[in-house]
Amino acid sequence: MNKLYELLDKAYEEMVSVRRYLHQYPELGFQEENTPKYIAEYHKKLGHEVRTGVGGRGVVATLRGGMPGQTVALRADFDALPIQEETDVPYKSRVDGLMHACGHDSHTATLLVLAKVLNSMKDEIEGNVVFIHQHAEEVLPGGAIAMIEDGCLDGVDVIFGQHIWSLLPVGSIEYRTGPVMAAADFFKVEIQGHGGHGSQPHRTKDSVVIGAQLVNNLQQIVSRRVDPLDSAVLSIGSFEAKNAPNVIADTAKIAGTVRTFKESTREHVEKEIERIIKGTCIAGDVDYTFEYQKGYPAVVNPKEEMEFVVDIARTVPGVTDVVECEPHMGGEDFAYYLEHVKGAFFFTGAQNPEVHAVFPHHHPKFNIDEKGMLIAAKTLGAATLTYLQNSK
Amino acid sequence: MNKLYELLDKAYEEMVSVRRYLHQYPELGFQEENTPKYIAEYHKKLGHEVRTGVGGRGVVATLRGGMPGQTVALRADFDALPIQEETDVPYKSRVDGLMHACGHDSHTATLLVLAKVLNSMKDEIEGNVVFIHQHAEEVLPGGAIAMIEDGCLDGVDVIFGQHIWSLLPVGSIEYRTGPVMAAADFFKVEIQGHGGHGSQPHRTKDSVVIGAQLVNNLQQIVSRRVDPLDSAVLSIGSFEAKNAPNVIADTAKIAGTVRTFKESTREHVEKEIERIIKGTCIAGDVDYTFEYQKGYPAVVNPKEEMEFVVDIARTVPGVTDVVECEPHMGGEDFAYYLEHVKGAFFFTGAQNPEVHAVFPHHHPKFNIDEKGMLIAAKTLGAATLTYLQNSK
Amino acid sequence: MNKLYELLDKAYEEMVSVRRYLHQYPELGFQEENTPKYIAEYHKKLGHEVRTGVGGRGVVATLRGGMPGQTVALRADFDALPIQEETDVPYKSRVDGLMHACGHDSHTATLLVLAKVLNSMKDEIEGNVVFIHQHAEEVLPGGAIAMIEDGCLDGVDVIFGQHIWSLLPVGSIEYRTGPVMAAADFFKVEIQGHGGHGSQPHRTKDSVVIGAQLVNNLQQIVSRRVDPLDSAVLSIGSFEAKNAPNVIADTAKIAGTVRTFKESTREHVEKEIERIIKGTCIAGDVDYTFEYQKGYPAVVNPKEEMEFVVDIARTVPGVTDVVECEPHMGGEDFAYYLEHVKGAFFFTGAQNPEVHAVFPHHHPKFNIDEKGMLIAAKTLGAATLTYLQNSK
Amino acid sequence: MNKLYELLDKAYEEMVSVRRYLHQYPELGFQEENTPKYIAEYHKKLGHEVRTGVGGRGVVATLRGGMPGQTVALRADFDALPIQEETDVPYKSRVDGLMHACGHDSHTATLLVLAKVLNSMKDEIEGNVVFIHQHAEEVLPGGAIAMIEDGCLDGVDVIFGQHIWSLLPVGSIEYRTGPVMAAADFFKVEIQGHGGHGSQPHRTKDSVVIGAQLVNNLQQIVSRRVDPLDSAVLSIGSFEAKNAPNVIADTAKIAGTVRTFKESTREHVEKEIERIIKGTCIAGDVDYTFEYQKGYPAVVNPKEEMEFVVDIARTVPGVTDVVECEPHMGGEDFAYYLEHVKGAFFFTGAQNPEVHAVFPHHHPKFNIDEKGMLIAAKTLGAATLTYLQNSK
Repeated sequence: MNKLYELLDKAYEEMVSVRRYLHQYPELGFQEENTPKYIAEYHKKLGHEVRTGVGGRGVVATLRGGMPGQTVALRADFDALPIQEETDVPYKSRVDGLMHACGHDSHTATLLVLAKVLNSMKDEIEGNVVFIHQHAEEVLPGGAIAMIEDGCLDGVDVIFGQHIWSLLPVGSIEYRTGPVMAAADFFKVEIQGHGGHGSQPHRTKDSVVIGAQLVNNLQQIVSRRVDPLDSAVLSIGSFEAKNAPNVIADTAKIAGTVRTFKESTREHVEKEIERIIKGTCIAGDVDYTFEYQKGYPAVVNPKEEMEFVVDIARTVPGVTDVVECEPHMGGEDFAYYLEHVKGAFFFTGAQNPEVHAVFPHHHPKFNIDEKGMLIAAKTLGAATLTYLQNSK
Repeated sequence: MNKLYELLDKAYEEMVSVRRYLHQYPELGFQEENTPKYIAEYHKKLGHEVRTGVGGRGVVATLRGGMPGQTVALRADFDALPIQEETDVPYKSRVDGLMHACGHDSHTATLLVLAKVLNSMKDEIEGNVVFIHQHAEEVLPGGAIAMIEDGCLDGVDVIFGQHIWSLLPVGSIEYRTGPVMAAADFFKVEIQGHGGHGSQPHRTKDSVVIGAQLVNNLQQIVSRRVDPLDSAVLSIGSFEAKNAPNVIADTAKIAGTVRTFKESTREHVEKEIERIIKGTCIAGDVDYTFEYQKGYPAVVNPKEEMEFVVDIARTVPGVTDVVECEPHMGGEDFAYYLEHVKGAFFFTGAQNPEVHAVFPHHHPKFNIDEKGMLIAAKTLGAATLTYLQNSK
Repeated sequence: MNKLYELLDKAYEEMVSVRRYLHQYPELGFQEENTPKYIAEYHKKLGHEVRTGVGGRGVVATLRGGMPGQTVALRADFDALPIQEETDVPYKSRVDGLMHACGHDSHTATLLVLAKVLNSMKDEIEGNVVFIHQHAEEVLPGGAIAMIEDGCLDGVDVIFGQHIWSLLPVGSIEYRTGPVMAAADFFKVEIQGHGGHGSQPHRTKDSVVIGAQLVNNLQQIVSRRVDPLDSAVLSIGSFEAKNAPNVIADTAKIAGTVRTFKESTREHVEKEIERIIKGTCIAGDVDYTFEYQKGYPAVVNPKEEMEFVVDIARTVPGVTDVVECEPHMGGEDFAYYLEHVKGAFFFTGAQNPEVHAVFPHHHPKFNIDEKGMLIAAKTLGAATLTYLQNSK
Repeated sequence: MNKLYELLDKAYEEMVSVRRYLHQYPELGFQEENTPKYIAEYHKKLGHEVRTGVGGRGVVATLRGGMPGQTVALRADFDALPIQEETDVPYKSRVDGLMHACGHDSHTATLLVLAKVLNSMKDEIEGNVVFIHQHAEEVLPGGAIAMIEDGCLDGVDVIFGQHIWSLLPVGSIEYRTGPVMAAADFFKVEIQGHGGHGSQPHRTKDSVVIGAQLVNNLQQIVSRRVDPLDSAVLSIGSFEAKNAPNVIADTAKIAGTVRTFKESTREHVEKEIERIIKGTCIAGDVDYTFEYQKGYPAVVNPKEEMEFVVDIARTVPGVTDVVECEPHMGGEDFAYYLEHVKGAFFFTGAQNPEVHAVFPHHHPKFNIDEKGMLIAAKTLGAATLTYLQNSK
């Protein structure tokens, strides 16, 4: 493995420059144009088989090793966010209102340069490596589903992925066996009452009062209907019934989010929400519309592959600790890949106050210690080579 | 009218002694035996036509005047209450646990002695007087319905009634045109959840939580669903789910009362209760039973007859003031008579600190100034004679 | 009184033309310029003493009768509303976005032409008549308070006022002894929680959930804290916490209105609201701001003066019926005058489908049968002359 | 270790007969008399140092090994439950209304016979074994606190304990690193309103309505105030405000339980309950009393000792599987020992349909497969010997 590590050390400078280039030209999910072109170009130069427009805007490149064997997929996402960058870095975003504020630029740079290094070791590789460059991780329904439907996992035996993490010190790797990122769903309710003058409530159906009851009634899902040893969140972010103070509103619009880790809990919570809305609206004699939008499912790391990656990670130069973390409540469409093939997903530390890399993801001042990319590349690369070797 | 007044003044002593006799032998509604016998005997001695067992235990006596004319009914109720008397009067109840604590003894004494006096003036009377002695005013469904079905109002043109009132100074008469006493209904809800251990709420259906939501949701009937210019009360007297603190109850039992003045409001409130229970139980995924027991409807005094009685009352000796009062929230089955014939119902003051007549009705120390009976008899008598005279 | 009626009949044409002129040039409350000028001019031509700028923009004119006596005030308001007129009348509003949609133009025309007629009968008048032309009835805090502070009631013995009513058939007059229009107050609550991501509710203080509890808790004021025989309304028109569905809002803004008829109930309800907000926010561990803005108090007609006007009204030619009505839940700053002097306020019918006068007040198609003005003028004029005559 | 296992196999018959003897003579916690006498006698016969009356009714016996070394404590509880036994076993409880329905008889038999066997191997033991026979595990505040204060852990280096488990197949052992049994607390609230007639709510302070709001408001503790990745339960078992349906209750009594795994969460939930009660009662203008009774804290197994026991258990004859379980929501005062010394607590399977051992603990038909005792004795014994050997 030392050869891999040395080659990556040498290629680190390029990795940084690729990342900084991408950082300056962020593109929104489902609107990426130049980024996939750039990626495809990079792989073509390496002589990889390249498919573009996979599932829309994804790029899939394949490196065939010198010896036959299994196929490992590595995934990096490449979309940016509608955030105005507020850092002072020289490679600051050149696109007004857009920013790589979640680190997907680093994911892409990591994967491209790792691809180049692996390519240079081609003859020693006992199988194939598929590089899945995914668009639109930040925007529902995400790019993963369409890329999978478009065949990006065909022939793949295992998939590895990682997320750079600005709140985890560089050198640390975090992982979790089992559910590691929540299913993140969304819902909207519109309560259709019957407005009127505030002095004559009996001639109205008061959507604000019914909406308030609904908010209260929904609390009991987490407090009463979900196993206390399981985790679920139901939060109502928005309650909208703006009006004159003396005019009873026709409608109240309520919107919220649900986070769960088990598919059965997720389905249970959705059904509970719907039943509580129905009953509350019957009690209030009002109509309603209800829309439940499923976000990404939970990312669930299978034990065997996760422990395989953990064991590798502990041996990677620069890695100071590998620790099991609490599940994250955020969502990630890497979940879909793990519904089709086995694999593992982990977090690579990139926090470093010396380079002002201390802000959370999606923050206008978000930044990373780029050394995190190198660690990620080494871990993914070592996992890939070891996996192929073991499974021949 | 002076003759009537003088005869009643002379008969006052008897009126007192009849009342005191009845006071000593109270009988519960639907269980009256000696009281109706006593009443029937009294009327028979006067030579009145008497029907006993009317609608169960009621007594109806008819006085035919010397001249033809219309028919006026006068009604007095005669049942007592399951209350242990705590007064020191010499004619204290001789029946353990029972007491005439609402003054129906006085109503009966008033009516009997008035009957005797009117009988003695028979020749001058231009029509007929029907004396309706009603059983069971205090116990649902009341005696009035059955007596009416049994014909007590047949041939009756108008009905007058009064209630002695221990919180109104003797000499005062209170009345109200339109609704004067509320419809008093009762309801019971049993929420059938699914009990279990408090540490595993997800395996239960928590009837306490759903019951609590129901109590809250029911508040909106008065606050939102009833015309603010109308009056309605919904009170929950009982919430019963006694249990170990760590065991979730199977059932919660809720019971309450509803008071309204308009039949349409009453029906509306009942429907709202049922709908709110249904919706709340759907939201809570529990079953329920609901029982709504209609009490007496509202007593509604028609304008013409009420004003007729008021005009008379103002001229009665001993009456110091006749004032319009706020509606009472209590119920009274005189309401049923007014659903069939026109008429009027009023309150005769009998409060007098000198004779300790200051306690509210249904109080163990309840007492009246007996002079109130005399005023009631004069008012009813004068109304009867004048009405018959006017309508010939 | 026949002379008065005949003179008014003759002046009806002018009354109509004054009203139609004013209708074309509506001005908003506290911004009236030309309307008070026009009014002042009219009175000056009649030789009345005129004060302008009374309490801001009000006009007060005084007619001194030929004989000494008491002083009757008559009040008309003259502001318009920010409503775009949608009628087809030839005298439609010429000011974009403004309209006399409540009939104050007719109040002013009625009073001006009545002033002219009374002026012509000056010698027969036994006392004085003060014409109070009030600005800003539609906008809190209303013009009445300031005009009273500025002396418009100085020397006044009694005040009469009326409101034209487009939902009452022309020919009818409605009145009510005691409370006839509600006190109309407003309140705002801002719940200051602590926002955050919807997946981490324990790091937030959820203002939507606390706001929902507040809405529910406020229901109990009307259902539990106010005498069921009294009337009160508390309606929440606005609940505003618009946000992303997965972000818990920092603040929820709630605004509502309170209607009451008794000053004691009004104060009680305000205190209850404040206590419930306080307790709910303690329970929810959030801060809040609370603002209670008192609107006009209830208009309460004293019995004697109201009955005096009713007796007059029954004799006015063109009046077909005079009926006691339910209280109105709307507010009217005539209330303030009646806190200082005795008087009466009534509603004059002006509904007539033939002239499309069937829309409610404040409706873009609002219109009146102008014959209502004539009836109002006759009633106010007859009340004025009779009152002065009686009280000499 | 084989010697230990063989000796225990031989002693199994005695273990069964000790357990069956104890089963017939159950005693309630804090009222145990014969059980501790029996235990003390047993140890005295073995020549162990015996202290009785430890912390009230506990018994502590010490076996000094033939060689110096550390000290291992083994704990068994010995109290029974106020349950009427409904099994058909020949050794059924002979005490009316009392039953060993949680298996503490088996814990005691296991420990006594293990003591005898270890005693026979005394010379080979490199250290000491302390046998802690604890009274009153089922009744708050439990016997453990007082026994610890009375010195039962003095000189102890590590403690092991187990609970027989009737819902886990015999042969299985369950354990959990970290929190394995919840802190189980209890609370009572009495809402002191002001009763009155249901028709006059404004003269009352309605404790049922405020109590209902409290139940609802308490839901938000789990749904909003506790980290979704942590576990907490708050259940209200009892709501008591029994009354006539038309009389508003003076007081509502609410009682519930709280389960948590972290001490910080436990304290947080208690504070939240108190603040929500306070705020809700301010909003409702009522007084209250609040009592929070802390039950046992969470049992938290330290990683090292737990894994040590697990490794041993996997090698014990008769053990078919050793699996990590979800935490139990029930409480156990073994928690207190682990607050003072390191150690481990696990569950030993004893379910077997063939001997009708399928009912949950605390059930009148509760029973165990007694082979579970043998497995428990072997595991505890092997852990003891190995620990002492390793740590010399």
